[in-house]
Formats: sequence, structure tokens, C-alpha cells
Amino acid sequence: METLILSDEDVHRIALGVGLDHLMDELIDRLTKAFETFSTETTVVPARDGFVYDHPVPGLLEWMPCMTYGDRATVKLVGYHPGNPKTRSLPTILSTIGAYDTTSGHLICLMDGTLLTALRTGAASAVASSIMSAPGSRVLGLIGAGVQAIAQLHALSRTFDLEEVLIYDVDADVQGTFTERSSVFASHLSIRPATVGDLVRKSDVICTATSVGIGEGPVFYGVEPKPWVHLNAIGSDFPGKVEIPLDLLQRAFVCPDFRTQAIREGECQQLTPNQIGPDLFEVVQNRDRYQHVRDQITVFDSTGWALEDHVAMNLFMELAAELRLGTRVQIESIPVDAVNPNYFATSRRHETAQRRPTEPVLFESPDIAFRQTGT
Amino acid sequence: METLILSDEDVHRIALGVGLDHLMDELIDRLTKAFETFSTETTVVPARDGFVYDHPVPGLLEWMPCMTYGDRATVKLVGYHPGNPKTRSLPTILSTIGAYDTTSGHLICLMDGTLLTALRTGAASAVASSIMSAPGSRVLGLIGAGVQAIAQLHALSRTFDLEEVLIYDVDADVQGTFTERSSVFASHLSIRPATVGDLVRKSDVICTATSVGIGEGPVFYGVEPKPWVHLNAIGSDFPGKVEIPLDLLQRAFVCPDFRTQAIREGECQQLTPNQIGPDLFEVVQNRDRYQHVRDQITVFDSTGWALEDHVAMNLFMELAAELRLGTRVQIESIPVDAVNPNYFATSRRHETAQRRPTEPVLFESPDIAFRQTGT
Repeated sequence: METLILSDEDVHRIALGVGLDHLMDELIDRLTKAFETFSTETTVVPARDGFVYDHPVPGLLEWMPCMTYGDRATVKLVGYHPGNPKTRSLPTILSTIGAYDTTSGHLICLMDGTLLTALRTGAASAVASSIMSAPGSRVLGLIGAGVQAIAQLHALSRTFDLEEVLIYDVDADVQGTFTERSSVFASHLSIRPATVGDLVRKSDVICTATSVGIGEGPVFYGVEPKPWVHLNAIGSDFPGKVEIPLDLLQRAFVCPDFRTQAIREGECQQLTPNQIGPDLFEVVQNRDRYQHVRDQITVFDSTGWALEDHVAMNLFMELAAELRLGTRVQIESIPVDAVNPNYFATSRRHETAQRRPTEPVLFESPDIAFRQTGT
Repeated sequence: METLILSDEDVHRIALGVGLDHLMDELIDRLTKAFETFSTETTVVPARDGFVYDHPVPGLLEWMPCMTYGDRATVKLVGYHPGNPKTRSLPTILSTIGAYDTTSGHLICLMDGTLLTALRTGAASAVASSIMSAPGSRVLGLIGAGVQAIAQLHALSRTFDLEEVLIYDVDADVQGTFTERSSVFASHLSIRPATVGDLVRKSDVICTATSVGIGEGPVFYGVEPKPWVHLNAIGSDFPGKVEIPLDLLQRAFVCPDFRTQAIREGECQQLTPNQIGPDLFEVVQNRDRYQHVRDQITVFDSTGWALEDHVAMNLFMELAAELRLGTRVQIESIPVDAVNPNYFATSRRHETAQRRPTEPVLFESPDIAFRQTGT
């Protein structure tokens, strides 16, 4: 009973094997179905929890669990360490996600969570935007042009017939390389830099995907967007970090991905409870009732919902099986006699049977020096 | 930047390589030091959380996180599925534990958690018993003679000069094989079966390590133990599951490993807040103040504390390094340019550089059939 390891390289091979567009389309489709059928009677999604610290370096390590009864639980571990790029040549976010069989507890698969996170975040915006944006939306504005903006553009380019993409980033290098970085799927699109003001005024759909500092938001203000603009607030994922101006939020239909988290970490931090609309799954499940919001200013407050990771991981696992990718390793202890799982006897039997058939097993090895430092 | 995988086989090799006695002694020593130096300013141990379900099979999947600032976080995932042995030939408990660098978020190591859990549970009882039991304790009673009882006996045999070990299990087979199963480290001990009544009356130290059903406890009653008996309540780990009679608890000095958990899942479920004593680390840090409890009835309410897993994992990781055991795998995505982690461009560069130097990369593969079932 082995565990499948899907490394970042396996994940990339899956994406290239099925095609990035095909992968994104399928994920948007599955996420839509998952929102349509979501019920707390079949699926449990606790609010994520984690360790937040300021020393020795500022960082965050959090876990995002999700379970579908009788099927699978997934738990994504996400490390967020903004000092990584400069001090360690590592990305800010490192992530792995495990899938567990809820009928046995077995760790079925462990995979890198980086591409999965970007894809599902993009796909969730596509689902939200397709329901809440005005009919005929053609201009997309991206505030923040980093890796998440690439995934946002990819997902929205699969959902909308985009005429123009306006981009803005405080970092000129990041802004300057965006067109090249997105050329894999977006070479047919007209992408051009803009001032924040122009971008906000001209866009039908706006994605904010910035790493604006805590207490330093919003990322634009004093400029009036189109009266039907839809915003996807992606970089809203930390207490004190906000991207959208309060006066705009207060006039908007605000739809969080997961209310509990959004109130703690998202744009909803700025709002009173009665100013917050229904969760995305409720809007998806009642499209007709929310038809009218298309004509209003709408905000999808995206903090990252574990169900999205769950759906994406199931998809990657299916594709890995079809493409025969990944490495199988035996990690968990499965004793010979499951009814009587005695580790000492088992390991002795195991050792004597497999490695030292006639010699006695040595249980003392005084040569090994233990380091006596505490933990 | 790879992840070290320590499989059950690696863990067994470590145990056999350094010797089971040596390993247990070192763990008891380190756990003692960890309790002595524990402070919420250096270490964060949230109460464990998880999924509990009744269908399609009864089970539990929980995560137990612990972090030392500036050092490491460990997160143990534990699956508890009592139907495993009979329906799947799998052990009731499957477990893995991950260690994360809290300066970068990197998953340093993933290891099987089975032996680790048994060892640290035994070691914690040894720490508690050495402080709270009466001087000259010589008779150990084990109610429940399964795998946890083996680890309890092992740990306590390293701490006490045992004259006699009395065992009782409702399952005659489990009781009958105990001596053979513990012979690896306990062949010098006098182990004999007893009735529960005799066992309770005659023991100086008692460990209850049973799988008594919810609402079916306690595991003994109507019998008076020695007035200085110390009990380690090991099988107290589930809401509604208790092992020790209430009237005994109410007369005893009750020391939980982790008050929050013990109130929810341990013997402390039966008590009012003022009947619950200090946590084990407080007793360890104030030995002199609690000297008098040695003459009383004392109970260590052991629910399993994530700090114990943390300490044990650090030890196993050191030993793995010394013995050069384990398998290194690259799981996490580390893009070439960490400041600009663009998955699409990176994977394209990666693919073209390593596998298809001249051919264009295909991004559509219509031959791959997606299964259209939802999640």
C-alpha cells in the first residue's frame, strides 16, 4: 500500500501532457460542478489554521483541510515566507498537498502544491467572474503582474472573449516581462501596460493579485471604475492586508469564497457582517436569483478555499494515473498481522526474515553517539 | 532542496541500528528536557483538530501540529479506523508526520508515524510515572495488552526496577501472546496474567491502554488500588471514551498531558475544571512543589501531545542522518528564478531545456479523455 509522490516535475509533465488550456478548462468545469453540488452534508471544509511568526524571519505555515465523506480528505500545507527570494533564492510560497483515504486513513498521494494553487485560484476567479461580470465584458485589468496574475489571465482568457488586457505592477521588471511570461497561452491577446487609473477606469473585469504590505492597501483609490465592473480580489489572504478601497466595497455586491476566512484575512475584514454577500457556492447554486448583480459592481473576495485544492488534487491524481506519472514509495507501517500490530515483534520478524535469517538481531549499539542537545 | 522520506522500514532500521533500549532511553531523556524547558514563548502547540465520521465506516483523521520558533514545525496526520484490521487487513492506526523548516516553509522530512507514536507515548508515561509514582514502586499492571502496552512496558522497564508485571486483556489471544511479543526487551521480567481485580489491587503503577468502546468505560471498578498507585491512562483519546472510574479520579491528583485535549477526549471529560491538576510540563518544571503527590493516588491523563511527536521526530531525523538512512526526493517546486516564479514560463523553459531542445511544446492533447465525474 504505497504512497504516490507527484513532484513538481511530475506536475509540470501532467500540465504539458494534457495541455495547459485543456487542464484549465477541465478544472474550471470541475470547480463549477463542485460549487453546484457542495453541501455541508457531504463535504467538510474547516477554516484553515496555522502558525504565524515574526522571528527569526516573518512567515506563515498553514494547513488547509477538506474532506468528502466516504471518499477522500486532502490537507494542503502552505509556507509563506516573503524573505525567501532575496535571502535563500527560494520562492515565497512552498506547498505540498496530501490526499488521504477516509475509509482507511492511508496517505494515497503527496504532491507539490504550487501549480495546483495557481491553477485553482485562477479557475475560481473564472467561475466567479462568469456569473457576476456584465454580459459582453471584453477588457481585463490586472493589478499586480506576478505569477498569480498569469494564472488569472489564463483562466479568464478561457472564459471571456477578451479584446484587451491592461496590466500594472509597481515593479517595472515584473510588468515588463508579463507579455513574454504569458505568451504560452496568451500570444493572441492584446496586452499593454497602463496606469492604475486608466486600468481601473477602462476594465470590465479587474483582478488584484498584489503583495501589497499589511496596512499599505488599498492598491488603488480615487478613481471610478465602470458601474458594472467585476473585481477578483486575489491577494487578500492575510490579516491587515487589503487591496480594494472601502468605499467601493461598501457599494458592491461582495461574494467571499469562504466567509469565515474572508472576514479574517480577505477584503471582508473591512466590512460589517451585513455588508457581506453570500459565499460563491451559494451564488453558483442560485444563479437566477443573483442574475441582477451583473449590472452592479461586484467583488469576488478570494482567500483560497480548501475545496478548490481538493478538486484540483483529484484531477491531478486522475491525470497522473492516465499518464502513468509519479513515484510510488512505501512509507506507512503495515505490519504482517494487522489484528496484532506489534512494532517490536514485527520489526524483529521483518528484520530476521528479510535481512538476517540466521544471526540474532543486535538491539544495542553503543558506538552510535547521541547528540545531547535538547529540542 | 529535497525532502527526506523515512519509511516504516527506515524507522525500523534506525530502531534496530541504535538499539531499542538506547532509543527509548534517549527519547525519555529528551522528552524530560523538552518538558523542563517548554514555554509558550518558544513553542506553539495548538489542540489537535480533525475529521470524525460514522459513514461509510467509523473513523477519524486528525492533524497534530507543533512549532518551535525559528526552528521547525511538525504536523502529524493520524488516521484511526477501527474496522481496518478485519475488513482491510490494515492496522487501526496509520500515521505520517512531516517536518517543516519555519524559516523557509520547506518540507524537510516525511516519515511513518507508527513507531514514533508508540515510543513517545511510552516515554511520556515514563516521565510522568517517574515523578508521580511512589518511591520503591515495583509492580506494574497493564490493562490492555496490545501494541501500546508493549511500548508502556518498555518505557517503564527503563525507568523502574520492576519485580513483577501483571497483565490483563479482554482478548485472550492478545493476553496470551504478550510475553512473546515483549520478549525482545522484557525477557528478564516476570510477566503473568491476572484478573483485573488482582491487577488493580497489587500494582504500584497501572497503565490502561485499551480500546474500550465509547460509553463502555471504565475498564475496572469496585476494587480499591494501593493508596499510592499511579495510573497512566493511555487509551483516553476520544470523546466519550474513558478508562478510569470517576470515584477514583475524584480522589486523585490528575495531571493531563494537554488540558484542552484532556477535557475533550481524556479522563478529564469526567471532571470539573477545579478537579483537574496542572499539565505534565508544569509538574516537571516544579518537581519539588509536587513531591507530596507521590504518596497519593495520581493519574497521568495521556491524550498524546504534539510536542512529544515533535521531539521524537527530531531524534529520528538526527539518527537517520547519522545512519545515512532514508530516501531523498525532490517534491516542491523551486523555479529557476525565485524572484519571478512563473510556472508556465518555468515549465516551458524547463521542458524545452531538458527534454525537447528543438521541437515546439505541444499544449493541446485532445487524445486524453477526461473523466467527467464530479468530485
